[in-house]
Amino acid sequence: MTDLISIAVDAMGGDDAPDVVLEGVAQALSARPFLNVLLCGPEDVVVPFAEAHDRCTAVPCSEVIAMDEHPANAVRTKKDSSIVVGCRLVREGKAQGFFSAGSTGACLAAATLVMGRAKGVKRPALGVVLPAYDQPVFFADVGANADCKPEYLVQFAKMGAIYMEHVMGVSNPQVGLLNIGEEDTKGSSLALGSYELLRQEVPEFKGNCEGGDLLAGKFSVVVTDGFTGNVCLKTIEGTSKMIFRHIKSALTSSLTAKMGAALVKGSLAKLKEDLNPDRFGGTPLLGVKGTCIVGHGSSNAEAIKNGVIAACTQVEGKVSERIAEAFANAPGTPASQAAPEEGSAS
Amino acid sequence: MTDLISIAVDAMGGDDAPDVVLEGVAQALSARPFLNVLLCGPEDVVVPFAEAHDRCTAVPCSEVIAMDEHPANAVRTKKDSSIVVGCRLVREGKAQGFFSAGSTGACLAAATLVMGRAKGVKRPALGVVLPAYDQPVFFADVGANADCKPEYLVQFAKMGAIYMEHVMGVSNPQVGLLNIGEEDTKGSSLALGSYELLRQEVPEFKGNCEGGDLLAGKFSVVVTDGFTGNVCLKTIEGTSKMIFRHIKSALTSSLTAKMGAALVKGSLAKLKEDLNPDRFGGTPLLGVKGTCIVGHGSSNAEAIKNGVIAACTQVEGKVSERIAEAFANAPGTPASQAAPEEGSAS
Repeated sequence: MTDLISIAVDAMGGDDAPDVVLEGVAQALSARPFLNVLLCGPEDVVVPFAEAHDRCTAVPCSEVIAMDEHPANAVRTKKDSSIVVGCRLVREGKAQGFFSAGSTGACLAAATLVMGRAKGVKRPALGVVLPAYDQPVFFADVGANADCKPEYLVQFAKMGAIYMEHVMGVSNPQVGLLNIGEEDTKGSSLALGSYELLRQEVPEFKGNCEGGDLLAGKFSVVVTDGFTGNVCLKTIEGTSKMIFRHIKSALTSSLTAKMGAALVKGSLAKLKEDLNPDRFGGTPLLGVKGTCIVGHGSSNAEAIKNGVIAACTQVEGKVSERIAEAFANAPGTPASQAAPEEGSAS
Repeated sequence: MTDLISIAVDAMGGDDAPDVVLEGVAQALSARPFLNVLLCGPEDVVVPFAEAHDRCTAVPCSEVIAMDEHPANAVRTKKDSSIVVGCRLVREGKAQGFFSAGSTGACLAAATLVMGRAKGVKRPALGVVLPAYDQPVFFADVGANADCKPEYLVQFAKMGAIYMEHVMGVSNPQVGLLNIGEEDTKGSSLALGSYELLRQEVPEFKGNCEGGDLLAGKFSVVVTDGFTGNVCLKTIEGTSKMIFRHIKSALTSSLTAKMGAALVKGSLAKLKEDLNPDRFGGTPLLGVKGTCIVGHGSSNAEAIKNGVIAACTQVEGKVSERIAEAFANAPGTPASQAAPEEGSAS
């Protein structure tokens, strides 16, 4: 029993909750024999499921935070919602991690307010592992902090390097700064300031990464502000979606193409799946006291499974502990319990 | 003769200049019987070409600005470079437009310093026409202004709407603001300020456009700051490149796939070409006194041809005149001859 990893899961998170969440949790429990799930949600949803599954405990909650609610307000008022309860289980040490495919904004707010920021961390960052060509890339911030300062980006870089090393097994991860040119004289005032500070404080920093190189595998960690990061992440998804839509049209444009399409269908479907960011199971919020992973609202059961497993892997990699250790003695403001910024992405 | 449109072309712009430039110019001259080219470059390059082609005049220049030179310094010191001379021809009324596939930064600097900003325009914007799914989208700024204010984005929106209406023939173009959520409470401080000002001043403004919707054809014009725009544009190109690289691998992964690949090759090659932003022939710089289009450094002859023709089309659509008219009476600071910002993309 001592080796079990307990993950609190929001049964009501996502567009197709609770059905796909329950299916995903069942798959994760089968895949990971050391996983213990604390399933948070309405009693009639979580109790029957927990009774039918080993290593699953029902945590009945009387409230649900909807996707369109104001994140910080919802978290403050709905103390018995599945998101707030899940984060509370982590704070109380009953779970080591929390996963939800619900409102990103509400998860950010709950994790920051309820779990709390790690000491020394100025702003928790929402990261994502991108399926780059040769190797995965950790990209942050993708929406937790719309307005940033250079010192935040330095912290994102340090947290991202810890994540890549201890979750993805990348030794000596190279860090890049998302920018509009390779030269150190290029960029917005934020990028110019960040370049200088990264150079001074992050030994793994290797220079600027242009948008076109984000997926080229030149860096293991790429940092930017949460506005640019969110726009970029969604642009990658949108571009990929558009190209596959075009491919579908192109492959039915002639009889020859249709015949060929029948033969390449399998390879293209596999490719589409490989490129799906859901494969990595959601976006970790780094810099809070505990593991918190937020899945896509459109997650299917497979994505939920991957998200829950990703939370396990992050716990196993002791990411939160390592970040706490790295930042505890770092110069900076003491970590007070600040409310998350207004205007963060949902 | 009175109906000829004169475009100054930088013979030395681009990675494969002058050969591909000359080939592209020859193709453009054949395609457009009313095009007159003023070819700027070294005497031994431009004179023989002009002698061999109708409607082409050689404009010998003794200097060339290299891709890696500091843009503003190069423009100030190399008065007889092909880029500066081309812009001067427009200022003097000898050409109506200028095209170069050379250093973007130098073209921006030369156009701003030599042609000058249109009265009332605070910051010229570099735009690009993206090949979105159902309809093209004008996206700006993609790198002329790394740091922006809300009033600049309002001007980008107005200039973009004029461009789409009079160059691309889109009636009543809908304007969107690139942002990290659809709601008006989302975004960085720049996005929040821009949303409010766009709502007040731009009747065509229809709300926020998330990164994933940039290529979805929901808007005809999408505005953002030059940092986010540049990163986004290059991310689209990088994503597209990565997917086609993956497709190539996927289609050779098995014998069945290889057989199918032979049949779908043609359709996919056409698709790749359709999605190539070079199809639209480069990025127009809007807000200067005259037409200025900057092509990709990697332009092939086809892209050069399209760029020169795009300059013609912009002249025919009287875009500069319409922008001058729209802004002349607009409130704002008088248009002084400011140097372009340091840190702009090259």
